[in-house]
Amino acid sequence: MNAELKDFLNENKQEIEQRLPKYLEQLPAPKTLKEAMIYSLNAGGKRIRPVLLLATLHSFGKPVELGYDVACAVEMIHTYSLIHDDLPAMDDDDMRRGKPTNHKVYGEAIAILAGDALLTYSFELITKANVGDLSAEQKLLLIQELAKASGPEGMVGGQVADLEGENKALTLDGLVYIHHHKTGDLLTVSIVAGAIIAGANEKDITNLRLFAKELGLLFQIKDDILDVEGDAITIGKPVGSDDGNNKSTYPSLLGLDGAKKKLEEHKLRAKEYLYEVEMNHHLLEALTDYVAERDH
Amino acid sequence: MNAELKDFLNENKQEIEQRLPKYLEQLPAPKTLKEAMIYSLNAGGKRIRPVLLLATLHSFGKPVELGYDVACAVEMIHTYSLIHDDLPAMDDDDMRRGKPTNHKVYGEAIAILAGDALLTYSFELITKANVGDLSAEQKLLLIQELAKASGPEGMVGGQVADLEGENKALTLDGLVYIHHHKTGDLLTVSIVAGAIIAGANEKDITNLRLFAKELGLLFQIKDDILDVEGDAITIGKPVGSDDGNNKSTYPSLLGLDGAKKKLEEHKLRAKEYLYEVEMNHHLLEALTDYVAERDH
Repeated sequence: MNAELKDFLNENKQEIEQRLPKYLEQLPAPKTLKEAMIYSLNAGGKRIRPVLLLATLHSFGKPVELGYDVACAVEMIHTYSLIHDDLPAMDDDDMRRGKPTNHKVYGEAIAILAGDALLTYSFELITKANVGDLSAEQKLLLIQELAKASGPEGMVGGQVADLEGENKALTLDGLVYIHHHKTGDLLTVSIVAGAIIAGANEKDITNLRLFAKELGLLFQIKDDILDVEGDAITIGKPVGSDDGNNKSTYPSLLGLDGAKKKLEEHKLRAKEYLYEVEMNHHLLEALTDYVAERDH
Repeated sequence: MNAELKDFLNENKQEIEQRLPKYLEQLPAPKTLKEAMIYSLNAGGKRIRPVLLLATLHSFGKPVELGYDVACAVEMIHTYSLIHDDLPAMDDDDMRRGKPTNHKVYGEAIAILAGDALLTYSFELITKANVGDLSAEQKLLLIQELAKASGPEGMVGGQVADLEGENKALTLDGLVYIHHHKTGDLLTVSIVAGAIIAGANEKDITNLRLFAKELGLLFQIKDDILDVEGDAITIGKPVGSDDGNNKSTYPSLLGLDGAKKKLEEHKLRAKEYLYEVEMNHHLLEALTDYVAERDH
């Protein structure tokens, strides 16, 4: 990872992590509920979505401060989705990032409600977000984009398709649908939200949306490849764990070499879209390379 | 119930019920997910929240059509809360309004996701709502009010307090907190949303908010009284069922006569606030009387 990218990621990850619990601490709400919400917000992770939003703003030459509130709202939506995904009725996971999952600590009822509360609060947060002189119309657009990306047409739809695809042989189209929606849409909206806050024009937003879609697939294909090739300690989960689930993956559908070829294709295409955008490309280009070349 | 109120309720309930599934039928989302969302939206109920919103608009002399989209968004939020409340980890209910609950038909995972999707979609719907010439600022205010009323400070907070109060002796303050938030906040925001769409001034909105709080308590106290006094067939659940749960209620805390006295107090106070508002009071006054005097 190049030094500019590394510094940017570290600084902004820290900033976001300091801010996340602050929104909730002072909220007039039951203590247990706030604790459960904050527990999962504080559970770490790459904070890739908020950082993508801030990186986009920065690449348009705007101060990252303008994106903090919306970036935190996106991370709250991501966190709610993890809490609900981990529930016994869904993936039934006891641990996430080395810590017990929300329902293991607070019980299922509170975990469901903590997820609901994070999702709902994220929209309230955007209505109050400090985004400089952004118009009310643009704020409404942010809410619309975010709701679309996380609702039935987006993340929740992808999650349902994933559930229905379990233990079934998927086609490549089926696999791409799941990735686009289950994980891709929220990554994409992070970048689009950064562009909206930066006041980007429609052409730039369209190209960034296409760039983000490619980046999301890149992310997923690389994950699948690492799952086959990677070292269990480096990536932090059992190597080949998706295989044991009978889950369709890029390598299982295309072979390892085929998956690596796809990775290169999507990387090239991502950069083509990126270069069309009138912004400084350094940071997002470095990020694209990192996503494709990382070893964990 | 007087004829004006009866006609208004029937006509608008029908209109809302026709509209609710239409938003989702054409949505590009997995079939099972849309079916599960529509199943619970079509499961009936009084549609009291949307009708309150429309009644408020009408009382300000505005066409009810301006409120349809936002009224449907509120009903979607109410429906999501019922789906999640019925889950095995929460109230574990198999039946609601004479039909199997969502998770009994679609399984727990889909039920959780259908609830998540309804909540998320409701915010998207407001961003696109046809509300005449309402400004983007006012639409943002609608979203903020609705998120606040349904999130950790509102409905979800009330639900957590209710869970924590189970099998505990509650004080009257504790009981009021639960009712205000678990059910009252969404009723209140329905009326406030109607006022915002009507372009009401701040003083009127404040008085309507106070009116709505009283109306919400009225509703709950009357429910508690009916649960003790009512006829099992008329109210459709076993008489005294809250008693079997060890749930604190108004009659259990104040005695039946004390609860009836409270009912009268809140009815008077509700009307006092209502009369302060510059609008035609007939419809909302008739509704207040109906809530306090109904026999089911």
